[in-house]
Amino acid sequence: MRFDHAGVATDDAEGLAFLYEDLFGCEIAHEERFQELKVIFLELENGYFELLEPQDDGTIARYLKRHGSGLHHIALETDDIEAALETAADVDVELIDEEPRRGAWGHDVAFLHPGSTGGMLIEFVEH
Amino acid sequence: MRFDHAGVATDDAEGLAFLYEDLFGCEIAHEERFQELKVIFLELENGYFELLEPQDDGTIARYLKRHGSGLHHIALETDDIEAALETAADVDVELIDEEPRRGAWGHDVAFLHPGSTGGMLIEFVEH
Repeated sequence: MRFDHAGVATDDAEGLAFLYEDLFGCEIAHEERFQELKVIFLELENGYFELLEPQDDGTIARYLKRHGSGLHHIALETDDIEAALETAADVDVELIDEEPRRGAWGHDVAFLHPGSTGGMLIEFVEH
Repeated sequence: MRFDHAGVATDDAEGLAFLYEDLFGCEIAHEERFQELKVIFLELENGYFELLEPQDDGTIARYLKRHGSGLHHIALETDDIEAALETAADVDVELIDEEPRRGAWGHDVAFLHPGSTGGMLIEFVEH
């Protein structure tokens, strides 16, 4: 698998994007409104930051209230997300999404429960 | 800059390494005792997970007590860590390390304060 992106929960995606452009020399690759979120992808040489700003109530808004802004998840890219989910189930990892669903940027995504991955929220993504 | 690794604080680096090997199809690339930590690097196609298990008191032990296991930091690789730190200072990012220091695996590293990067602990690393 390949590192795809680090998801960052923030209450100011544009402000953070401006900072990261300067700080990391990256550029905005994609922006969209996805469900209740403003989402900005910033492109590194081998992956992305995904900045997630809630425009309404939802999981990221709740996350921000509870934890404040910061790292939310790590996404790993796979060529076969269904096989990746089968492997996860085989090793007794609890799946948040038992089937892939359509995520931001039109990618197929599925999340694993952090309680069974050492406390880290992991997303599988297939482009 | 390039994604280098995601640092994960854990109280069982070996157990988590076994799980990630199965779950992500990655392999152990490096292990060492670094300061008060057991450190295991697991290799993805384009980067690493760095598993950090405290063997004694220190920042990771305190992090685990406060937050439990999970994502601790994101490391970005640069060819010129001193220039990266100058850029960070120029855009008013607070530096934890004003000069690079020797980190795990013999790499030069420097951390930025999460309070000025949107709540995310960032490490610059030069191999």
